[in-house]
Amino acid sequence: MSTEPPSPADAATLLQRLRAVRAQTEALAAPLSEADAQAQSMPDASPAKWHLAHTTWFFETLVLEAAEPGFRPHHPAYRVLFNSYYQAIGPQHARAERGLITRPGLAEVRAYRAAVDERLARLLLQQPERVSAGLVELGLHHEQQHQELLLTDLKHLLSANPLRPAYRDAPPRPATAAEQAMGWLVCDGGRVDIGHDGTGFGFDNEDPRHPHWLAPHALADRLVSVAEYAAFITDGGYRSPRWWLSDGWAWVQRSGAQAPLYWEGPAPGDGLFTLHGVQQPDPAEPVLHLNLFEADAYTRWAAAQTGLPLRLPTEQEWEHAARRLHADPERRALRDPAAQWLHASAAGADGGLRQAFGEAWQWTASAYAAYPGYRPWGGAVGEYNGKFMANQSVLRGASFATPGGHGRASYRNFFPAEARWQFTGLRLARDLR
Amino acid sequence: MSTEPPSPADAATLLQRLRAVRAQTEALAAPLSEADAQAQSMPDASPAKWHLAHTTWFFETLVLEAAEPGFRPHHPAYRVLFNSYYQAIGPQHARAERGLITRPGLAEVRAYRAAVDERLARLLLQQPERVSAGLVELGLHHEQQHQELLLTDLKHLLSANPLRPAYRDAPPRPATAAEQAMGWLVCDGGRVDIGHDGTGFGFDNEDPRHPHWLAPHALADRLVSVAEYAAFITDGGYRSPRWWLSDGWAWVQRSGAQAPLYWEGPAPGDGLFTLHGVQQPDPAEPVLHLNLFEADAYTRWAAAQTGLPLRLPTEQEWEHAARRLHADPERRALRDPAAQWLHASAAGADGGLRQAFGEAWQWTASAYAAYPGYRPWGGAVGEYNGKFMANQSVLRGASFATPGGHGRASYRNFFPAEARWQFTGLRLARDLR
Amino acid sequence: MSTEPPSPADAATLLQRLRAVRAQTEALAAPLSEADAQAQSMPDASPAKWHLAHTTWFFETLVLEAAEPGFRPHHPAYRVLFNSYYQAIGPQHARAERGLITRPGLAEVRAYRAAVDERLARLLLQQPERVSAGLVELGLHHEQQHQELLLTDLKHLLSANPLRPAYRDAPPRPATAAEQAMGWLVCDGGRVDIGHDGTGFGFDNEDPRHPHWLAPHALADRLVSVAEYAAFITDGGYRSPRWWLSDGWAWVQRSGAQAPLYWEGPAPGDGLFTLHGVQQPDPAEPVLHLNLFEADAYTRWAAAQTGLPLRLPTEQEWEHAARRLHADPERRALRDPAAQWLHASAAGADGGLRQAFGEAWQWTASAYAAYPGYRPWGGAVGEYNGKFMANQSVLRGASFATPGGHGRASYRNFFPAEARWQFTGLRLARDLR
Amino acid sequence: MSTEPPSPADAATLLQRLRAVRAQTEALAAPLSEADAQAQSMPDASPAKWHLAHTTWFFETLVLEAAEPGFRPHHPAYRVLFNSYYQAIGPQHARAERGLITRPGLAEVRAYRAAVDERLARLLLQQPERVSAGLVELGLHHEQQHQELLLTDLKHLLSANPLRPAYRDAPPRPATAAEQAMGWLVCDGGRVDIGHDGTGFGFDNEDPRHPHWLAPHALADRLVSVAEYAAFITDGGYRSPRWWLSDGWAWVQRSGAQAPLYWEGPAPGDGLFTLHGVQQPDPAEPVLHLNLFEADAYTRWAAAQTGLPLRLPTEQEWEHAARRLHADPERRALRDPAAQWLHASAAGADGGLRQAFGEAWQWTASAYAAYPGYRPWGGAVGEYNGKFMANQSVLRGASFATPGGHGRASYRNFFPAEARWQFTGLRLARDLR
Repeated sequence: MSTEPPSPADAATLLQRLRAVRAQTEALAAPLSEADAQAQSMPDASPAKWHLAHTTWFFETLVLEAAEPGFRPHHPAYRVLFNSYYQAIGPQHARAERGLITRPGLAEVRAYRAAVDERLARLLLQQPERVSAGLVELGLHHEQQHQELLLTDLKHLLSANPLRPAYRDAPPRPATAAEQAMGWLVCDGGRVDIGHDGTGFGFDNEDPRHPHWLAPHALADRLVSVAEYAAFITDGGYRSPRWWLSDGWAWVQRSGAQAPLYWEGPAPGDGLFTLHGVQQPDPAEPVLHLNLFEADAYTRWAAAQTGLPLRLPTEQEWEHAARRLHADPERRALRDPAAQWLHASAAGADGGLRQAFGEAWQWTASAYAAYPGYRPWGGAVGEYNGKFMANQSVLRGASFATPGGHGRASYRNFFPAEARWQFTGLRLARDLR
Repeated sequence: MSTEPPSPADAATLLQRLRAVRAQTEALAAPLSEADAQAQSMPDASPAKWHLAHTTWFFETLVLEAAEPGFRPHHPAYRVLFNSYYQAIGPQHARAERGLITRPGLAEVRAYRAAVDERLARLLLQQPERVSAGLVELGLHHEQQHQELLLTDLKHLLSANPLRPAYRDAPPRPATAAEQAMGWLVCDGGRVDIGHDGTGFGFDNEDPRHPHWLAPHALADRLVSVAEYAAFITDGGYRSPRWWLSDGWAWVQRSGAQAPLYWEGPAPGDGLFTLHGVQQPDPAEPVLHLNLFEADAYTRWAAAQTGLPLRLPTEQEWEHAARRLHADPERRALRDPAAQWLHASAAGADGGLRQAFGEAWQWTASAYAAYPGYRPWGGAVGEYNGKFMANQSVLRGASFATPGGHGRASYRNFFPAEARWQFTGLRLARDLR
Repeated sequence: MSTEPPSPADAATLLQRLRAVRAQTEALAAPLSEADAQAQSMPDASPAKWHLAHTTWFFETLVLEAAEPGFRPHHPAYRVLFNSYYQAIGPQHARAERGLITRPGLAEVRAYRAAVDERLARLLLQQPERVSAGLVELGLHHEQQHQELLLTDLKHLLSANPLRPAYRDAPPRPATAAEQAMGWLVCDGGRVDIGHDGTGFGFDNEDPRHPHWLAPHALADRLVSVAEYAAFITDGGYRSPRWWLSDGWAWVQRSGAQAPLYWEGPAPGDGLFTLHGVQQPDPAEPVLHLNLFEADAYTRWAAAQTGLPLRLPTEQEWEHAARRLHADPERRALRDPAAQWLHASAAGADGGLRQAFGEAWQWTASAYAAYPGYRPWGGAVGEYNGKFMANQSVLRGASFATPGGHGRASYRNFFPAEARWQFTGLRLARDLR
Repeated sequence: MSTEPPSPADAATLLQRLRAVRAQTEALAAPLSEADAQAQSMPDASPAKWHLAHTTWFFETLVLEAAEPGFRPHHPAYRVLFNSYYQAIGPQHARAERGLITRPGLAEVRAYRAAVDERLARLLLQQPERVSAGLVELGLHHEQQHQELLLTDLKHLLSANPLRPAYRDAPPRPATAAEQAMGWLVCDGGRVDIGHDGTGFGFDNEDPRHPHWLAPHALADRLVSVAEYAAFITDGGYRSPRWWLSDGWAWVQRSGAQAPLYWEGPAPGDGLFTLHGVQQPDPAEPVLHLNLFEADAYTRWAAAQTGLPLRLPTEQEWEHAARRLHADPERRALRDPAAQWLHASAAGADGGLRQAFGEAWQWTASAYAAYPGYRPWGGAVGEYNGKFMANQSVLRGASFATPGGHGRASYRNFFPAEARWQFTGLRLARDLR
């Protein structure tokens, strides 16, 4: 990441984008009560208030602290309270206890946001030469990641309430289409280039671009649907160890899972909990909230049903296809949370690698690992991505909750195999020979 | 408990008391933000909002449901959401997940309180003959118990915040007195009567009054002070297994405890977290926030120091002394939370069994068990006390947070041996021969 | 405990008893393979080899070390390896890891036993004036306790084997009698004396003898039978929270228990695992392997069935009855493990407090606590009983596995409420008024 | 895997190898007492007796059951007792409770081995046409895997004993050489073929051979030594989060680790526990018993020390180098456990990729995943490798405990990131550009 300062013109553009991204975070949090913003439903999920503060902390600590002459922190305790995991910056408040910090209250956190925004604006307008444009840029993308996390964490919290409250009233649903037959996009394989192409922003883990050898394969042209996944359940999928990885079956038995997360019962007709409350799914919409084990088990079951050598795609197969087939990262990207249908949709026959973006993050067969020649960014932000390269799997694409301007073909999202509170779905792949 | 209706005159008095008790709960919650009222710091502690709702649920479910013609619940989901542990009433929302119920919000819970209050008032004024006076009375004492729990639970929550926020500004502290020598109140023992004397309200577990044989013994005339307990710490009390019960030593090692709960360090001079934030304790004030193991270990250490056969009192020794020496249950009872010093105080040289009430609940050597001939109340309230008679110990007295009109000599409070977030202290006893 | 030396004559008698008790331990272990003697099935249960070694360690460390001139330990590591819980003696090998000590092997442990026996004999014969008779006596009773534990721990281990192996072939079963109606032994109550009467050996926790006031009550003249307990199960006892203490119901849900331990299924006809393998129980034999929660739940259910105020007896009620009715501690006491039926039996219509001894330890309503004026023994053996006086309940009587000469009316056995791998049963009591 | 029968000549050869492999297992178990063979020190480690039985079960269930006319099991309960994880075969005795199966005893298990051996011999000699040669072959390699596991599991058990017993007396140690400078083996990268080359046995997970694109890189020509790793410790390696993966640092804090497993203290001079008891390590010998987190942390620390872009090798880099540089899989392979030094050795300057085999399994940066076009074997043995392809990392090479004839360049061993009781070490790699 370049740590060069922006030109005054670039600084102005950056400030404009900053204001837009920061405003979008606040628009996402607008419907929340102070209680909604406070509670933490599990150690992996953070309170909305914490997201509001932490994204601000990121700018304050990584941008302002280095750039402001005579920097003074907004509040001395925030450095620890809102540090997520940066050991180079110092100690962190315990992750599982974020929901216990009732003070500062929501209004104080909003004031913290405003104060840091103002300081950033002053700096960008008056002393752009002191600012690292790269770190501001990173702060924007960081905040966009937290926008999606704010929604996934909030959904998890609301789902713990037997009243099943809605985050927002439902806007008009996307038009329902009859389920389309699953088509196959064939790739003959061979040497391809993988990784960020140098255009626009990318995280360090997308670098360096490097050659990779692909085997001949095909990718499904759309995601697995709710109806298709329901057939797996009906066929006893959650009761038969033969479809599951060993750790996956252990998870099934430990968790008692009988369906994806947020299904109110084992049949889709029982309803799905969404950000708009419990809704009847469209059978053709992509199935959501699978973990890697469920996604993998489905591929084995589907392989046995069809006789095809089905499996999950590798992240390189996915990236190559998205690039080759010009999948559009802005398709259904999150722009106006108040007007948008915050759930997967069956619509989206956009040709080529349909539903690549805008519906669900897609589990891949690839463990999250360094690309050949990978170097983490220097400084504290070297911890952003690199230290998680163990026991996580790569997800590709983007969901309906991924903000506009955030997705791209080389994007590498990653979560542990058991995680299923993210907006995660499944695209099939198969070997060709 | 009598289920007779009150006379119209008694109904009017009951309503007056109801209004006072309910208002006191709201006064306690008044300084809380919605976030403060929402968060739950451990499974054993409930959010303040839940206390507000549950005490209301108690009146709605146990009084209104039986008495109102054509009863309709305020909200159909509340029966489960705010049921604490009454199996006879039905399922309960999981105790450890009370902090995840962000909706109903605090305003809605306050509206719930107001609506039930109004229905109770209407009933008592217009149809007292339909009401069980005993259940209303129980509801009042139940709510008073939750008033103290609201404070202990809130203190636990605020202590989890590194900012150590205060619940309320500190009012003037009680005058500090030099520590007085510990005197001994001698009892020759023999047959005494134990249990509720029939005057005024009592819980079922205080009945029946029954003969009990006391051995000759003496009780200390005041509680163990902070300075005295600090000497135990300084002498390595938390590092030497010889003072501890076997389970107690296991707890020390598992928890890493080095001082009572809420001590900021191993010396009192490091400060104590109180409802008024971190404060310097008065060395002569009673030590608080011990669990049974700590209280017991102190007695063994003090016995070795003094050569006296020191131990914890039995609950019968305590009760007999309190009655015989006319200890005053209203001493420092909680009346006006805004004006009161919400912490133990060294003041209180009230003669006889000093500090019997108004400072700290006092651990006894008695396991919580049924009195001979005990019968739980009939109906769902039979679960109020009886089903906890295993693995708990009796505490006697009352703390500074016990509401006025709530304490009495026969009162049996009970908690597990490990609990230390209550306002719990220690009075010494010794064998005489 | 007296630490006086024995007279030469007493020393000779002591040696004779020592040899008999030590031989009985070895007779108990005789049928075990080295593997049987090695394995540890849970932290609370010890391997047989450990029992063999620890009882020897007790004599070596508490008797020889003080008495032998120029004492040298048999092996320097054993002081830690075979110390159970004596903090005053020093560190202890972790309780849960006793089963990992494969060396010393069983033969070495037997050699350790022989060597210590020989040293004890030499001392008692040649220098009795150096020996504490009281500690040798204690060592004998200590070893007898471990004889029963060896069997309960072994039974637990063998039960974990799906082959359900027998410890020994079954000798002839006691004659079966038709179940007799439960009779009631009435006591008018009043002041009685409780505790050890000064005749023969007693543990420190049976002292001092002291007055106690009994309420009028009656005790059942026999234990609850398998058939009676089975009726509780059939009636849904394990599915209905109303019979259970709060902690008990939590235990039922956590454990999934549907019957007492070692029942092969929910009906007695499914067979019971015994030290003689799976056997068909006699319906009239006392039910075994209940924990306190199960025993307590049965009393509530039985009270509802009969309309009688049934409950568990207090330990004082039990002791007073056993003494008053001359119950025989030697009834079915363990003498020859090879020839004895190692399970409860329906036989035993011995009049008065039938089955007081020789079938099952009987849960009482009494928490394990110090008697008024209790003083633990001096020295390391002060940890023998005193430090367990929290979160345990008293059991009275003796089982078929309690060695001859070990039981008495004042004996206080104690276990936590959840424990059910001991030979534990249930006698009903009821209030009279 | 071919399921063809062997020719009579091949059957004779197979039988000869069977006898040799089976005999080697028994030679490994020969020094064990029944207690040593019984105990299980953690759920991941199995008792030696279980290894003896399970490897026999494998032949009985997968070979005999399909091939013997009128097959009857040796014992009906063994099918469950000794099934490790084959869901297609049926239920399994709980993994964590293998140490509780004291019966069958060791002698019975040896008789089981002999009986199955005899039945296999009879079949191979008399009816080879009924036998699957591939499954017998697999059984041999399976048993060889368990030979190494028997040693790693036994070492773990013996280490839990404070007496630190030796498995065997130490034979002469390999000659000590002065530590050699670490050389670098350069590879320009490009397309290479990875996977089993079709010669001799291979597991399904080594197939299919497939093209892979390597980046330019270099591999260290020997493993990291004890002295080198000790420098990392001395420099505070276990106290500084900056070297560790996020999960790795969490592991350090949770485990309290300060050195590799089996180090008696933080310095090598404190001694290392080996199969020959506690020994002083040769500073130049390869460090053992690292988990992935430790191996990875060392590379980051070493990179900072040297300024080189050090990292773990990928499994493909390792395989390509081993093949290209003709590393010898038989180097120090286990043949005669009685005469062999069962620990890593500094000797082994064998040129090229030194210590590729014969010292330690070497962690790679590669998560364990399917090769492109991977198909698990058919039938129950499809569970052998395929279902573990999540949350595990590949190790390459072989250790001093890997049996002769078992290692090869394409071999993929795999363990979870936290595992360190295997004989695991570390080879450095670095990016070239």
